[in-house]
Amino acid sequence: MPECHYQHTLANGLTLLGEKMSGVESAAMTLLVPAGGALDPPKATGTGTVLSDLILRGAGQRDSRQLTDYLDSLGLQRASTVGVHHSRLSCAAVAANVMQSLPTYADIVRRPHLPPAGFQAARDLALQSLASIDDEPRQKVLIQLRQWHFPWPFGRNVMGEKDELERLSLELCRQHHARRFHPNGAILALAGNIDFGQLDREVEQAFGDWPAAPEEPVSLVPPPGDFHHEPHESEQTHIGIAYPSIEETHPDYYTMRLGIEVLSGGMSGRLFTEIREKRGLVYNVWAGYNSLKGYGSILGYAGTSNDRAQATLDTFIAELQRLSDGVTEAELDRAKIGLKAATIMQGESTSARSGSIAHDYFIRGRIRTLDEIKAAIDAVSLEQVNAYLKNNRPEKFTIVTIGPKPLKAP
Amino acid sequence: MPECHYQHTLANGLTLLGEKMSGVESAAMTLLVPAGGALDPPKATGTGTVLSDLILRGAGQRDSRQLTDYLDSLGLQRASTVGVHHSRLSCAAVAANVMQSLPTYADIVRRPHLPPAGFQAARDLALQSLASIDDEPRQKVLIQLRQWHFPWPFGRNVMGEKDELERLSLELCRQHHARRFHPNGAILALAGNIDFGQLDREVEQAFGDWPAAPEEPVSLVPPPGDFHHEPHESEQTHIGIAYPSIEETHPDYYTMRLGIEVLSGGMSGRLFTEIREKRGLVYNVWAGYNSLKGYGSILGYAGTSNDRAQATLDTFIAELQRLSDGVTEAELDRAKIGLKAATIMQGESTSARSGSIAHDYFIRGRIRTLDEIKAAIDAVSLEQVNAYLKNNRPEKFTIVTIGPKPLKAP
Repeated sequence: MPECHYQHTLANGLTLLGEKMSGVESAAMTLLVPAGGALDPPKATGTGTVLSDLILRGAGQRDSRQLTDYLDSLGLQRASTVGVHHSRLSCAAVAANVMQSLPTYADIVRRPHLPPAGFQAARDLALQSLASIDDEPRQKVLIQLRQWHFPWPFGRNVMGEKDELERLSLELCRQHHARRFHPNGAILALAGNIDFGQLDREVEQAFGDWPAAPEEPVSLVPPPGDFHHEPHESEQTHIGIAYPSIEETHPDYYTMRLGIEVLSGGMSGRLFTEIREKRGLVYNVWAGYNSLKGYGSILGYAGTSNDRAQATLDTFIAELQRLSDGVTEAELDRAKIGLKAATIMQGESTSARSGSIAHDYFIRGRIRTLDEIKAAIDAVSLEQVNAYLKNNRPEKFTIVTIGPKPLKAP
Repeated sequence: MPECHYQHTLANGLTLLGEKMSGVESAAMTLLVPAGGALDPPKATGTGTVLSDLILRGAGQRDSRQLTDYLDSLGLQRASTVGVHHSRLSCAAVAANVMQSLPTYADIVRRPHLPPAGFQAARDLALQSLASIDDEPRQKVLIQLRQWHFPWPFGRNVMGEKDELERLSLELCRQHHARRFHPNGAILALAGNIDFGQLDREVEQAFGDWPAAPEEPVSLVPPPGDFHHEPHESEQTHIGIAYPSIEETHPDYYTMRLGIEVLSGGMSGRLFTEIREKRGLVYNVWAGYNSLKGYGSILGYAGTSNDRAQATLDTFIAELQRLSDGVTEAELDRAKIGLKAATIMQGESTSARSGSIAHDYFIRGRIRTLDEIKAAIDAVSLEQVNAYLKNNRPEKFTIVTIGPKPLKAP
């Protein structure tokens, strides 16, 4: 797919990114504002999540209902979520309609009404959403894994904590908005059937006079790690496993990624064939790389029946450690093909590309082309992968289990 | 997006469908074999699901490991699932690799080894997967809703029933394969960067001499419907609601769909604004059309805290019934834009298109272009929608709840 990129940082610090994609009618937008869960005020975990709902309840000249109706009248498929680093707004539609929505997204992040009634509803929904996780142990184990494995405040639960959400005030939400929603550090990325000249003009007009604000660095507290169990009456046990890895900007990044792909890529991955296919121990098992700024990890999950839980944990750890004995040429070839195929498929989706270029810029300060990614994958040799795996044996595991009985730590 | 379609039914009854998509490197394949959950042998619910795993454990000249390795060496992103009507195999990758995989997919459906050890593992995984649903009440309520709402055997749980899976034999799986895996009624659909001439030759060669077998019609038993409750200790209550609708081939299909879009499309949909945004009753609520051959339904879900469950059910039913009072011009306009936008976005994904043309052919006997779908949506008038809604008041509800306390039926 032919590519063409655009990058321009406005005077106020907002970075505009564009990728022109041929053969598509649509465009997709990703707007990252540096107000993620890690930046929630102290003892007010979940503020960003409540705020990400509240900013949509009226902004600029439109009240809540008018705003929702207007965005739907453009046919936008849209989402708002909160991650560790950013509050994220995204949408996709026919390209002209995504362009037309930009001034309204500027209203949403710059001029939200933050009304009292909307605050009550948004906080109630955040509390309900949090409570619903009790019925979803598969999600719950990953939330807890992040809490124990990531350095604070990266590991904070972006959904919030019950007592802190109950004490949250509209006033604090307003302060948080004033303090964290600013253009410096924000990224606006569009991919699809777009014209860079028009895009630049529209963005300058809608976001150009958004005033910058001081950035406050986050200091990280090392994670507790270790082995944790939460009792839960069920026939199933859910296991989360994490260990530290290198950052995405590290020169060995693709060397490491290809090792993990041998472990858990496709259906020929070792976890799948050893734990699921051969031994029938689990119905669901995976491991994957997780990228935070300044902190890379491998996160893994297995869900299984209680009687197979200890064997599953033991086998999972054994497979992780067996990686240091190296992989075969055939395994590496499949891993390369799998990673490149995923890159190509992702390159055909405007939504995936707008998210990817925004992530690329945040982590690396620039956009990478798909050809550059493919070349980086191809450049890795078997010797490099096996040397990396030998010298970087998985260790310092954080393990979280949810089920009726604790398991023995490996 | 320019379109170009190909359709050819082989002498043995297999229908080959193609859609050429510009600007993409990839292709996606969907293969539907008429061996869905509704066709599982009597008292052997889940046979199709076990078989859909088992056919991948060695086929043609390759044993289980060789088969998995080979498909992964093509970089295929692949899936196998079982629906009501079909066992479905799908994959996506660079177009040449999808083409190259076709003879192997022919091996999988025509010449699987069905080995005894593989059978044990596949059945164990099916049992584990079924047991895991006990930890997923949100999924469980929809499975039960289908069981009570669809006519038998459409409502059978494709995942299987515990006692029937425990009694399932390899012999029965082999019989089921011999009886149900045949080309007549099967559909092979490819979308993406494909050449129709080459596709036709490859498919004739790989599938042309697959012998047809007798088709056995399914007789439907009317569904029990009604109101059901399953006790489950939790702070959450999960509600499933269903009622009969028209078939997808009915002339009023888009008229009906636009009414449901007003109810539950986008964030301005009535369910979302009335139940979630205004009243803060639920964290998750939706309703949508479900298409089976000869049987259309509306299925809906709401998940909420126990103290709000009765109010949520009452409001959900009230909103369904309020539809018969009609919708506004503005609501209909947004609904049209939303449905068309979804159609356009879907038109840019090779995977979505290969699935859609296969579904189209199964339901309608032909492929529709995206322009035809958009024109059908545009042709619907406000008068038509409101007349339809007035004359087709939702009734004969099936309602399933999972939570600590039963609710009052409306």
